[in-house]
Amino acid sequence: MQLDELLEGIREGRRAQVARAITLVESTSPKHRQQARELLAALGSRDGRDGDLPDQRGPAVRVGISGVPGVGKSTFIEALGTRLTQEGHRVGVLAVDPSSIRTGGSVLGDKTRMARLSTDPHAFIRPSPSAGTLGGVARATVQAMAVLEAAGFDVILVETVGVGQSEVTVAGMVDTFLFLTLARTGDQLQGIKKGILEISDVIAVNKADGDREQEARGAARELAGALRLVRGHGEWAPPVVTCSGLNDVGVDDVWQRVLEHRDHLGADGLARKRAEQQLDFTWALVRDELDQRLRHSSGVRAVQAEVRAAVLAGELTAPLAADRILEAYDEG
Amino acid sequence: MQLDELLEGIREGRRAQVARAITLVESTSPKHRQQARELLAALGSRDGRDGDLPDQRGPAVRVGISGVPGVGKSTFIEALGTRLTQEGHRVGVLAVDPSSIRTGGSVLGDKTRMARLSTDPHAFIRPSPSAGTLGGVARATVQAMAVLEAAGFDVILVETVGVGQSEVTVAGMVDTFLFLTLARTGDQLQGIKKGILEISDVIAVNKADGDREQEARGAARELAGALRLVRGHGEWAPPVVTCSGLNDVGVDDVWQRVLEHRDHLGADGLARKRAEQQLDFTWALVRDELDQRLRHSSGVRAVQAEVRAAVLAGELTAPLAADRILEAYDEG
Repeated sequence: MQLDELLEGIREGRRAQVARAITLVESTSPKHRQQARELLAALGSRDGRDGDLPDQRGPAVRVGISGVPGVGKSTFIEALGTRLTQEGHRVGVLAVDPSSIRTGGSVLGDKTRMARLSTDPHAFIRPSPSAGTLGGVARATVQAMAVLEAAGFDVILVETVGVGQSEVTVAGMVDTFLFLTLARTGDQLQGIKKGILEISDVIAVNKADGDREQEARGAARELAGALRLVRGHGEWAPPVVTCSGLNDVGVDDVWQRVLEHRDHLGADGLARKRAEQQLDFTWALVRDELDQRLRHSSGVRAVQAEVRAAVLAGELTAPLAADRILEAYDEG
Repeated sequence: MQLDELLEGIREGRRAQVARAITLVESTSPKHRQQARELLAALGSRDGRDGDLPDQRGPAVRVGISGVPGVGKSTFIEALGTRLTQEGHRVGVLAVDPSSIRTGGSVLGDKTRMARLSTDPHAFIRPSPSAGTLGGVARATVQAMAVLEAAGFDVILVETVGVGQSEVTVAGMVDTFLFLTLARTGDQLQGIKKGILEISDVIAVNKADGDREQEARGAARELAGALRLVRGHGEWAPPVVTCSGLNDVGVDDVWQRVLEHRDHLGADGLARKRAEQQLDFTWALVRDELDQRLRHSSGVRAVQAEVRAAVLAGELTAPLAADRILEAYDEG
């Protein structure tokens, strides 16, 4: 592969080269990794700081979109993305799906569920990579984001689902985190996982259509009240709105809230947030790599079942068990 | 130091030996660490599984107690601990204070603020160790807990303050996590840090005395409502009560809620929770150690300021920065 050719194609926004570059940054082979490194270094950072661009465009709008399976993420992204391309934006859709890592299962960013957007010349949809670990997937996604931004995509939507740490990971790579939920059944809101409200910047109760509209409005009001109570002073109070991705009702309102959150950050706040995200992400990637080495160490693999059994049986306390694992790691 | 003598003293519940054993488990010297390992192995795990004890006592009640400075933790622990010793319990008070690590500052478990309890022959108060990192402090605290339990203390209270990950760490070493807060001012509850409600099993609005009693009750009601809304189905719904540590009002009620939470877990649930905590804690300690090695690596120290500056200036993306740190680490 010629790096120059790839680079030029990306800068001109050509789909074939963008796709090839993303395949490259997703690869775990050492050779590809080295090439990806060179490519990204050449593309440079595009956080709106490189003022020598002819069009002087600002940083892309990076939005994370989460919610449990069935909440209607694909339908919502289809409606939102189509709106945005009609307004002249170029929209990249990426996905972080940790469930695909183990099961090979539901790969988010499913083009068949975004029929219009997947044929839209101003949109680029890429399903979740399945590169071994959440850290690996996140690494690939952050790099794919850089490729898309270099190719002139000015809105990046990163879809994820509530598995493990995936939302926290995605929240750490976007400007604004949008959480989709459904109206309550009984006295509980559905699909609210521990910790998710803490990282959400905008919340939308989806499927507010037909009979469910009233219910959705009630749920949004209650949730907004609960959030005011548990959020600290002086913080951004996440707006809670209703929408229907299916009928394309309220989707524009959701987008306006995303832009309001961005305004609230301000240009300096956004630059600072992104810089801190990059720094946090740097150390997270380093730790992920060390964790991989630990898990794959033959010494650790030889003792871990035994240590686990001894800990679970109460025969070994954690500090002693940790020492034993570290000894096994150091011995190889 | 004679291990046998120490062991015997602990088993007989003698304070001098208990204190010496805790000093030993807090030490970071390799020699002491080896001795601590032998001591803990000899004491064995005391999670109520060793049925050969003459008194057949069950596992100690382990409770984490958190809340911002000024919420009245010491006064509350003084009132609760005194009550418990009067009822015939033996109460150990430990503390995890990550702020003392850097500042040498407020060392929790302050005996001067627990005047009665610190002279109570049935109580043992130990201030927070300040052993380098949160992982180090947690390690020492878990081991001190094992020493106290082996010495026949049947209630262990672990005090902590809302700094960084300290509450999550403490929640990972206790059966029940009690969060103390204050009545609201304006329309916000004071001292509610992100994520804290997610890990709390019992919540008490403290300083519900004099004029503030009504206010405290209102705050408790509102908080209970908000929690019902944001917690998932089928989970333990944390009770929210009011109390006054100062006047010893409602402290017993708080304790009853702690015991109810424990009943809710059940004997099997408790054993499972503890086993899983030990397993999680094992890997957390291993990662903490690897993290220490990373931070203290001379290679990493040589490049980290430069990498940090490059990332913050947008000249280096996180994946490339991570690669550079890992290279520096591998080179030593």
